[in-house]
Amino acid sequence: MSDNEFELIESCFKGKGGHSSPFTRFAIGDDASIHHPRAGFDLVVSSDTSVEGVHWPVDFPRSRAADRAVCAALSDLAAMGADAVAVWVNVMAKDESSVRKMGKGVSSALKRYNVELVGGDTCRSPVNAIAVTVAGELPEGTAMRRDLARSDDNVWLSGKLGFHALGLQQWLHHQRDGEYVHHLEEITPLISAGIHLREMGVRCCIDVSDGLLQDAGHIAKASRIGIDIELLQLPNWIHMCRSVGRKAFYEAVLHGGEDYALLFTAPAEMEIPEALAVKIGCCREGSGVSVFRNGEPCEVEQRGFLHFG
Amino acid sequence: MSDNEFELIESCFKGKGGHSSPFTRFAIGDDASIHHPRAGFDLVVSSDTSVEGVHWPVDFPRSRAADRAVCAALSDLAAMGADAVAVWVNVMAKDESSVRKMGKGVSSALKRYNVELVGGDTCRSPVNAIAVTVAGELPEGTAMRRDLARSDDNVWLSGKLGFHALGLQQWLHHQRDGEYVHHLEEITPLISAGIHLREMGVRCCIDVSDGLLQDAGHIAKASRIGIDIELLQLPNWIHMCRSVGRKAFYEAVLHGGEDYALLFTAPAEMEIPEALAVKIGCCREGSGVSVFRNGEPCEVEQRGFLHFG
Repeated sequence: MSDNEFELIESCFKGKGGHSSPFTRFAIGDDASIHHPRAGFDLVVSSDTSVEGVHWPVDFPRSRAADRAVCAALSDLAAMGADAVAVWVNVMAKDESSVRKMGKGVSSALKRYNVELVGGDTCRSPVNAIAVTVAGELPEGTAMRRDLARSDDNVWLSGKLGFHALGLQQWLHHQRDGEYVHHLEEITPLISAGIHLREMGVRCCIDVSDGLLQDAGHIAKASRIGIDIELLQLPNWIHMCRSVGRKAFYEAVLHGGEDYALLFTAPAEMEIPEALAVKIGCCREGSGVSVFRNGEPCEVEQRGFLHFG
Repeated sequence: MSDNEFELIESCFKGKGGHSSPFTRFAIGDDASIHHPRAGFDLVVSSDTSVEGVHWPVDFPRSRAADRAVCAALSDLAAMGADAVAVWVNVMAKDESSVRKMGKGVSSALKRYNVELVGGDTCRSPVNAIAVTVAGELPEGTAMRRDLARSDDNVWLSGKLGFHALGLQQWLHHQRDGEYVHHLEEITPLISAGIHLREMGVRCCIDVSDGLLQDAGHIAKASRIGIDIELLQLPNWIHMCRSVGRKAFYEAVLHGGEDYALLFTAPAEMEIPEALAVKIGCCREGSGVSVFRNGEPCEVEQRGFLHFG
């Protein structure tokens, strides 16, 4: 690494982001960051990559893309019910200006959620990309998981679906003032909701990053159950159907992804506050995800985003 | 993420690498991996990126490049004196074949050092690249750091320098049967040596990834001291000078990098076993790194690898 790169790290990354956490003894500046985990707590760690032209359009602002990448990673912690304590970023950039822009986005996202940037690296690359690794804490043994749904649980959704996919369509069709475009610009990881759910005793949760159908399928497969979803229970369906048509709405909700809502299951007797989530279905014995519209079965295509299709 | 991508993760990454560690409760398969850190221990974490055409030649085997990337990251743990407990990898790949090849390299490196692959992701990218995040454990408060050298310490080197840079030169000049080319193929992170040094009470260490001069400079700057290095004390200098000439040898040793030797300082009274390291200089008051040849000062250029030059 060159002096120039150290200067970039000093000016774009070191001390950026949220306040330092008791979890971290030493952040950026050595071969590794040094941490002291809390007794009685588990750590959860997620690591995800975003690549220009693959995860975001080439004409999308790089700072916003980096902001989104950080928030998407934080959403994984929300799905586990964890509080974020540290973030490492790897910035791959075509030029110094891209490093600075992505650094700005990283810093902005971490400030909003008050998470400390503790390490990572930056390097030259023929394509702009960013990998984000996040760590969160939660009381020992309480992490929400995909494999803990029961066949008599209800299925709930916290947050909204479809906005990102509709915004992306509008962006790609150069409708830059489209109704949904602003949903592209910022992801809201539901960290507080995740912690709340975990504290209430919810055991099974996932964040909807790959479309409702695929992510519900992950719960079904991991928990060895089936899931039934009622489309008319989805939040905002009336408004969105009117705005873009039923087909586009269902496409965006079922396959769109990247809204980072939380999909979770809970025993029927567990009371979930209305402000936190809506009930959109139930688990059952069996396997797979079935979709209903006003009680009638719908035929839906089973697919998500194809990376190596 | 597509089913296809999950299949790739299942076949290339899940359960690959070393044995599972007590540190990890749940590895690949949820939104995040789940860990239970040991009481009385600190965690150290490092995250680094390697990009095809930047960190490795485009005609270099991708499996070996990924193996090297993992070992380079493990070397950061060696520099802290930590034992590796978990690795996350982000594989960015042009095609499925590249994912498989890089997955093979990751798995191979992790098996050699018995470290579990616990998470990460894989995605399509116009350029092959890999980011590796590693976590290691060590007793609370004992991590070796760059900023803990004292002005009356001696400077020691564990491992050898210059081989990688000479091998790379030969590779780039199509001397594929060159004497040093095989040093390109595998990095040996000095994990056991790092743990040994930390247990002996060494407080200041760095791994030489950016060339001796630059990495010694990091210790000097962070510890607010100066460092004097005697070139004739460097291991292998006679043989290498004869083989490639003095100029190429010094260039490779001072600026080459990527040999992942450990550079550390220790009080004069600390006895370091000859098999573990050689004394190559001493710390002093002041700042900067000075280089001597048989006691005579040498003029050397201060530079490392320029990422955004």
